[in-house]
Amino acid sequence: MGMYLAQKEKQVTLSRLDQQIAFVYELDYLKNVLRKTVIHDSSRPENSAEHSWHIALMAVVMAEYASDQPLDLSRVVKMLLVHDIVEIDAGDTYLYDQPASLIKDETETAAADRIFALLPDDQTTELRALWDEYEARQTPEARYAAAIDRLNPIMLNFATAGPSWKKYNITRQMVIDRCKHIAEGAPLLWDYALSLLDQAVERGYLAASTSPVKDPRG
Amino acid sequence: MGMYLAQKEKQVTLSRLDQQIAFVYELDYLKNVLRKTVIHDSSRPENSAEHSWHIALMAVVMAEYASDQPLDLSRVVKMLLVHDIVEIDAGDTYLYDQPASLIKDETETAAADRIFALLPDDQTTELRALWDEYEARQTPEARYAAAIDRLNPIMLNFATAGPSWKKYNITRQMVIDRCKHIAEGAPLLWDYALSLLDQAVERGYLAASTSPVKDPRG
Repeated sequence: MGMYLAQKEKQVTLSRLDQQIAFVYELDYLKNVLRKTVIHDSSRPENSAEHSWHIALMAVVMAEYASDQPLDLSRVVKMLLVHDIVEIDAGDTYLYDQPASLIKDETETAAADRIFALLPDDQTTELRALWDEYEARQTPEARYAAAIDRLNPIMLNFATAGPSWKKYNITRQMVIDRCKHIAEGAPLLWDYALSLLDQAVERGYLAASTSPVKDPRG
Repeated sequence: MGMYLAQKEKQVTLSRLDQQIAFVYELDYLKNVLRKTVIHDSSRPENSAEHSWHIALMAVVMAEYASDQPLDLSRVVKMLLVHDIVEIDAGDTYLYDQPASLIKDETETAAADRIFALLPDDQTTELRALWDEYEARQTPEARYAAAIDRLNPIMLNFATAGPSWKKYNITRQMVIDRCKHIAEGAPLLWDYALSLLDQAVERGYLAASTSPVKDPRG
């Protein structure tokens, strides 16, 4: 047994450490939350843990395109590291699943209440505030972080010939409606996203117009 | 097509953006690099992308245990986000695989040369310097980052009853030899790691003494 049990002062530390350890173990469950996007070789769905890593590093590399400069990039990265951990309880809600989106806020808030509370109080407050800020999208950091979170799956869908776009009859306009706030966080990256969508339509990865499901005459 | 092709100034930007996009796409390949550790339900090996996310967020939560305070946590997080991307070319070298460890530096350096160079020059320099700093383990941030990178798999092995420890006849002493620099980066976390190793031996997840393979009489 290590020496940190030997002193009363260290026992206090242990209790705090125990809470932090519990949180770190909890995080492992995000590796089992599957998204609709697939990885580059289409061999399997992407999970929310590796997605979080991908966009955190992408945010570092793309920081110069954020609307508001200077940007506190370290806060952006922390936001993206925690932004999906509520999915441990709530699961990943597909961006274009309207019924699921209606109850998403409630289930994710309950998940945030439980998961962040595993930490010592001061850290619960700090990380929960970051998650709330990300969700509200009212600060420069949150707007930029949300832009990266939306651009990444457009890129992955494009690179894999749009399997989830095809499967769920997603149209160019639906992507624009759900992702146009990329323009608020990073205008040049929104131009880039639009160019990908146009190419995706040309190549048949993405429907150009309203899908039959949404046709009022259907 | 988006409007960023319309102006000459924007074309320069596109070229830079193209390099950054290529790097972001390249990162996706880390999701296919498998480690020896398994996730919480033992259903599959962990991959290096989700591992990188796990330890980046773990580093945020455990920052108070870093030896050197104050610590530039944002540099620690960036280091951990990039620390394994060389494995896209080099693969994951098992910590206890001695022959592979001998050529690890060479293959990983070649990988770093190729992968970081996908970025614009200034970013190649910045991220490569972070990776070199992490590998050298001479700064407070690198020592702490390396401590977190070593503690995490001890925790995951312990929580999953040590499948890779058992499979490769790993002993308590071998773990200590390869992980004892946790004590340099975060002394209290090294005490915690030792307590896990003791419990792992008690529970039969980890061998107490030198394995038969390493027995000179064998």
